[in-house]
Amino acid sequence: MLALVFDGEAALRNNYSAPKVGEDEALVGVRTAGVCSTDLEMLKGYMNFRGVLGHEFVGHVVEGPKGWQGKRVVAEINCVCGRCRMCKSGLSNHCPNRTVIGIDGRDGGFAEYVSLPVGNLHEVPAAISDAEAVFVEPLAAAFQIVRQVRFAPSDRVVVLGDGRLGQLIVRVLRLHVSELVLVGKHPSKMEAAQKVGAKTVALADFRPCAGADVVVDATGSPSGLELAMRAVRPRGTIVLKSTYAGEGACNLAPVVIGEITIVGSRCGPFADAIDALADRRVDVSGLVSERFALCEAVCALRTANKPDSIKVLIDVQC
Amino acid sequence: MLALVFDGEAALRNNYSAPKVGEDEALVGVRTAGVCSTDLEMLKGYMNFRGVLGHEFVGHVVEGPKGWQGKRVVAEINCVCGRCRMCKSGLSNHCPNRTVIGIDGRDGGFAEYVSLPVGNLHEVPAAISDAEAVFVEPLAAAFQIVRQVRFAPSDRVVVLGDGRLGQLIVRVLRLHVSELVLVGKHPSKMEAAQKVGAKTVALADFRPCAGADVVVDATGSPSGLELAMRAVRPRGTIVLKSTYAGEGACNLAPVVIGEITIVGSRCGPFADAIDALADRRVDVSGLVSERFALCEAVCALRTANKPDSIKVLIDVQC
Repeated sequence: MLALVFDGEAALRNNYSAPKVGEDEALVGVRTAGVCSTDLEMLKGYMNFRGVLGHEFVGHVVEGPKGWQGKRVVAEINCVCGRCRMCKSGLSNHCPNRTVIGIDGRDGGFAEYVSLPVGNLHEVPAAISDAEAVFVEPLAAAFQIVRQVRFAPSDRVVVLGDGRLGQLIVRVLRLHVSELVLVGKHPSKMEAAQKVGAKTVALADFRPCAGADVVVDATGSPSGLELAMRAVRPRGTIVLKSTYAGEGACNLAPVVIGEITIVGSRCGPFADAIDALADRRVDVSGLVSERFALCEAVCALRTANKPDSIKVLIDVQC
Repeated sequence: MLALVFDGEAALRNNYSAPKVGEDEALVGVRTAGVCSTDLEMLKGYMNFRGVLGHEFVGHVVEGPKGWQGKRVVAEINCVCGRCRMCKSGLSNHCPNRTVIGIDGRDGGFAEYVSLPVGNLHEVPAAISDAEAVFVEPLAAAFQIVRQVRFAPSDRVVVLGDGRLGQLIVRVLRLHVSELVLVGKHPSKMEAAQKVGAKTVALADFRPCAGADVVVDATGSPSGLELAMRAVRPRGTIVLKSTYAGEGACNLAPVVIGEITIVGSRCGPFADAIDALADRRVDVSGLVSERFALCEAVCALRTANKPDSIKVLIDVQC
């Protein structure tokens, strides 16, 4: 099959073996996939991944249990054992035996087919288009924040980063708080956030004053935490969403002095994301910068890396 | 008066001006003071402090409101405005207008006299000796952990660092959890923790396995956080107590991936510490390594820096 494979370099392969379908697994024919910043970090070495990239996708079940066949689906990315302490305690996303689709030990969705556990599937309602369905995975990650942190409507919230994830976070948090500021670098991206009701401040004009109740770091850069520590109030909360390759210099003394809480946040509830897209509480229109065919996937990655790009889609079966 | 003054170098001064006593302040004649790791970090530039060091002390009120005169006291170290948003919301320790005794903008207790707001004073019950009373401030900081983090009795807790603060943290946490391990470097210090019922593991033998529910970093070193990230379970909590001069290299990706919570923790409730010392729930005997007279304070600092040293006391008025 055709697939975008990373083995130290990302390259299109047209003879890549189609995935084997294990017990309790389904084979999904990918329709459309999305490029995430994590994909771009993996190109720099993050997670030391080798294989087919891609963990945001929508497709049809072409092989699997009868009830699922032909269904349009999205899929949770953590493939778990179901037997360990984490799985048994309801924290299966943290299963130490997990593989992660397109990220850790398991091929992803920048390919014609991807195999995955049936338990990971979620049917996509007709009200959600393919282009919208690709956002379910990262939107779920944005919804995870409101599962982990209790927001008061009066909370002053700052989101650092106007990129792919920052945009979705803003769309979720505006459902919970009224005073929401996105700090960005790119006029076109800040405009996309303004359109859904967020205030925006250019990074160059942002004066952190230890006044925010919650700061979300979605910069994808080591500098995000440093800025977050200056923006959050004493006893406030920093939500960390940034993962990146390499190390940054840091001294967390401000966290101790200000008794700040840092909450790491990763994957989230698919159901929340699907519901919010289906009933139009979250609007992702305007976030797709460009679409490419799978045969142009290398170009898609390059485009996703451009400063002005928000979400780049890869259409596999159109 | 005689005082240990830091102006880029720590030196004894015998003609240092006695502190002025402002409105709503008291003058305390220091009896005994303790050397804290923060003092040693300040010698390296932490907080960019200039003045009299020392923020752990017990003394007698020699000037102040009638009700306080002659009383034996310890004192909270944050001197606050009482009018700002933080003070009004019960978080006065985070008053942005604060000075901090011996740490930030205000002379400390390695001197014959120290002045401070009357509101900071706590009377010391007769059941607590001077040598024990010196521990009230750092012990309160240890108690702060159980104010911030809810422990279940079955929680597996790891304390990193067998130094001054780690010892007190172990003494507090053993009141709350049964499975408590102190990771240390120094046999004599680990022995001091064993005496109060903690298990100990030498750092060289410690195999972090992402299994602890809570990890407390009291190493006072950038390496502590890195070790804590490997020791804590997914969705677990790291309590940060370490402040230090300079920067460490770090990548908080494990915090995001494991959805770990980091809680910065600083000063704590004096009343809890005084009660625990008075009713012998916390035993600090065996933690005093050496005592020096104020005129030997430079030597006291040097001794406190030695690997085997736990608490070094400076006796001012014996």
